[in-house]
Amino acid sequence: MSDNVPIDKNIIDAAIKELHVDMTRASIREVNRLISVLENRTGLRFIRMEFGIPGLKTDRIAIEAEIEALKNLDVANQYAPFDGVPVLKEAASEFIKAFLDLDIPPSCCIPTNGSMQGCFISMAIAGHRKASAGKILFLDPGFPVNKLQAVVLGLQSLSLDFYDCRGGRLLAKLEEILEGGEIGGVLWSSPNNPTWICLTESELEGIGSLLTRYDVLGIEDLAYFAMDFRQDYGRPYCPPFQPTVARYTDNYITLISSSKMFSYAGQRVAIAAISPVLMEQKSADLLPFFRTDRIGHAFIHGGMYSTTAGVAESPQYGLTALFRAATAGKLDFISPLKEYARRAEFMKKVFLRNGFHLVYDNDAGIPLADGFYFTVAYPGMDGNELLLALIHYGISAITLLTTGSSRAEGLRICVSITGQDQFEDLEQRLQKFQIDHPVR
Amino acid sequence: MSDNVPIDKNIIDAAIKELHVDMTRASIREVNRLISVLENRTGLRFIRMEFGIPGLKTDRIAIEAEIEALKNLDVANQYAPFDGVPVLKEAASEFIKAFLDLDIPPSCCIPTNGSMQGCFISMAIAGHRKASAGKILFLDPGFPVNKLQAVVLGLQSLSLDFYDCRGGRLLAKLEEILEGGEIGGVLWSSPNNPTWICLTESELEGIGSLLTRYDVLGIEDLAYFAMDFRQDYGRPYCPPFQPTVARYTDNYITLISSSKMFSYAGQRVAIAAISPVLMEQKSADLLPFFRTDRIGHAFIHGGMYSTTAGVAESPQYGLTALFRAATAGKLDFISPLKEYARRAEFMKKVFLRNGFHLVYDNDAGIPLADGFYFTVAYPGMDGNELLLALIHYGISAITLLTTGSSRAEGLRICVSITGQDQFEDLEQRLQKFQIDHPVR
Repeated sequence: MSDNVPIDKNIIDAAIKELHVDMTRASIREVNRLISVLENRTGLRFIRMEFGIPGLKTDRIAIEAEIEALKNLDVANQYAPFDGVPVLKEAASEFIKAFLDLDIPPSCCIPTNGSMQGCFISMAIAGHRKASAGKILFLDPGFPVNKLQAVVLGLQSLSLDFYDCRGGRLLAKLEEILEGGEIGGVLWSSPNNPTWICLTESELEGIGSLLTRYDVLGIEDLAYFAMDFRQDYGRPYCPPFQPTVARYTDNYITLISSSKMFSYAGQRVAIAAISPVLMEQKSADLLPFFRTDRIGHAFIHGGMYSTTAGVAESPQYGLTALFRAATAGKLDFISPLKEYARRAEFMKKVFLRNGFHLVYDNDAGIPLADGFYFTVAYPGMDGNELLLALIHYGISAITLLTTGSSRAEGLRICVSITGQDQFEDLEQRLQKFQIDHPVR
Repeated sequence: MSDNVPIDKNIIDAAIKELHVDMTRASIREVNRLISVLENRTGLRFIRMEFGIPGLKTDRIAIEAEIEALKNLDVANQYAPFDGVPVLKEAASEFIKAFLDLDIPPSCCIPTNGSMQGCFISMAIAGHRKASAGKILFLDPGFPVNKLQAVVLGLQSLSLDFYDCRGGRLLAKLEEILEGGEIGGVLWSSPNNPTWICLTESELEGIGSLLTRYDVLGIEDLAYFAMDFRQDYGRPYCPPFQPTVARYTDNYITLISSSKMFSYAGQRVAIAAISPVLMEQKSADLLPFFRTDRIGHAFIHGGMYSTTAGVAESPQYGLTALFRAATAGKLDFISPLKEYARRAEFMKKVFLRNGFHLVYDNDAGIPLADGFYFTVAYPGMDGNELLLALIHYGISAITLLTTGSSRAEGLRICVSITGQDQFEDLEQRLQKFQIDHPVR
């Protein structure tokens, strides 16, 4: 297949122009659209690593539970409770006990239309809980759409980059920023999209105590729950447990996504686990935006009710079944996910032996886990040049710049939909790329 | 059953205190919760008219299409396109041609998580399209949560009450307000929640031309699509068609809900039909909030993507099947809904013969249609007093004050879940109420 690359420059330039893609800041969706057009026009199957979508099937347990709810529970005609179906709230609370070792009652487990909605509402609350502290701090790099959410909410944001900044250094920098008093919320994901670094227990402990000391809300996006495969987080009620800031502060909203963990992205259902202390906490500054001063009420009534009137009901039963099966030890949801690690291990090596290097290249001094993403760069090129050059070789990704990274040289590589059948193509295309782009 | 009423005042007072309900401004949800507690404690089954929920079943067509999608289309694991599944967009466009006689291409038909989300995003766009015109005008009374949405979005709002203000008078008042230049969007529902008045074609024509003249966005919430049962709007491609402002301006977003029309509220899927002209229109003032100046892109990328990353996929197939069946003339979705009209006709009479009168008592000079809601008052009591008094008789509703009405004396009555089996109770309880509350 490497005969077909590089693709004729004119074809690519024409498509970029036609679709109005600004290659200095192309979003995931724009790259996605461009590549689809190029695949159509050239007949070449790209190695698509731009989009972080699940590449595995949803377990039958969820599908069958949804069908059962549709057939026998009459879920379609009536609004579900806006704070979630009671069985899901209970199953979520028990799942959290089993896999996070936390006691969060069902009333504090709120189903959302994906963690996207959980992040959106959490940021709205974080930005208005204290009138004097309306900015969001992103621990970066991160999920590009979180930045868009802050923009849509009219909230200003700051960025603290993990690069060269872990452990004590991370905490010192964080404290320096929080001391300023203008931050209402701190948002991060761990395992991290896009670097796949994983915050350690001691980092989370430090972050938690800073959140408490400066009374700032922590928004912990567990989009890749239990996917640090160096540890076995998959045994219910047994240590080790998925690390979480919730162990170290009461100022947290922890978002538990089903999209990657259960490959259940299409039905848009996740859980926002709200600290029981925060749930009942009052802040008069919330009143003008939520007509209530209670944070829990603001999340449910001001947030869930006013944006979507809750979550579609049958997916809530699907997620209930998945949580219950995992908690009962009847669903090993980790093993299928390890396919991503196998892909990452192989694909990383292919990049490294063809002249690339990792940008975020270690995890607080130890080797990175293999997971959903990793980050690469190529000598003498910045990220925008590299992305455009790789597209000529039938390879797509997104730049680290769009993830809020300070490292202009890098790309994010997502392994999720690149199966073994494309490994040889990847190797050949990167070889050809390296030959055509000799490093001075 | 009237032996059990009035309920002991102490029981009601205790529950109100316990639940922290402010009876001077109790929301739908608060009344709902209070009544559930009272039913539990007293054993009395209330006549519950506070909550506008569908009382009918969803047609099997939708259920079967969802099951088919879950079983055979692999919809659960992958994100649906954020602008909607193509078959739904096409089916929506064709449904709109058949029942509204409008040409709106599939690209302008955006699935949302209920019209709630459609209203939320539309208001966000209306409030930021022109920096100088950030306020929302509600044609009132209306759905209370729309006001909450404006609050959550940080948008100021104004109200124009239909009471005593229809036809030319409505248009004159509307023009007076739009002339001021501070209104970015006008939102209304027709048939109207809670009064069940229906805007006439000439009113819609006038509103449309004012929206065009003052360049203001019209947000038309067709929550009760085709439910003015005085007309037969249920024959595809045949007049009469559901009246819509879209016939008279390019400045519209029309929200087509499936919740009441198809009794499909539980699966949270609706369509926002955006004017093709508006879809491509640019406004630089949108940039700081949506990172794009195109309205259509702002709706999809800034709105749908950043709040929920689209709509759950199986419900999109359910709605596709309903639209297709209705468009093909194979699903008579109107006839089952006429049950609401039969209930309204009877229940209105019961209220009227027991000393009540209608608040909004005519529809631009002709009798009101019978539908989902009507409005009542009782001599010598304001709405808050009346609601509290009726609760003692096992009857619940919400006050018109919470709907933005200027008529402090009224209540909104929703007929949807009061079946014939409760008609006798209603009559007896209202008789008792009237005897106990003689009009001076």
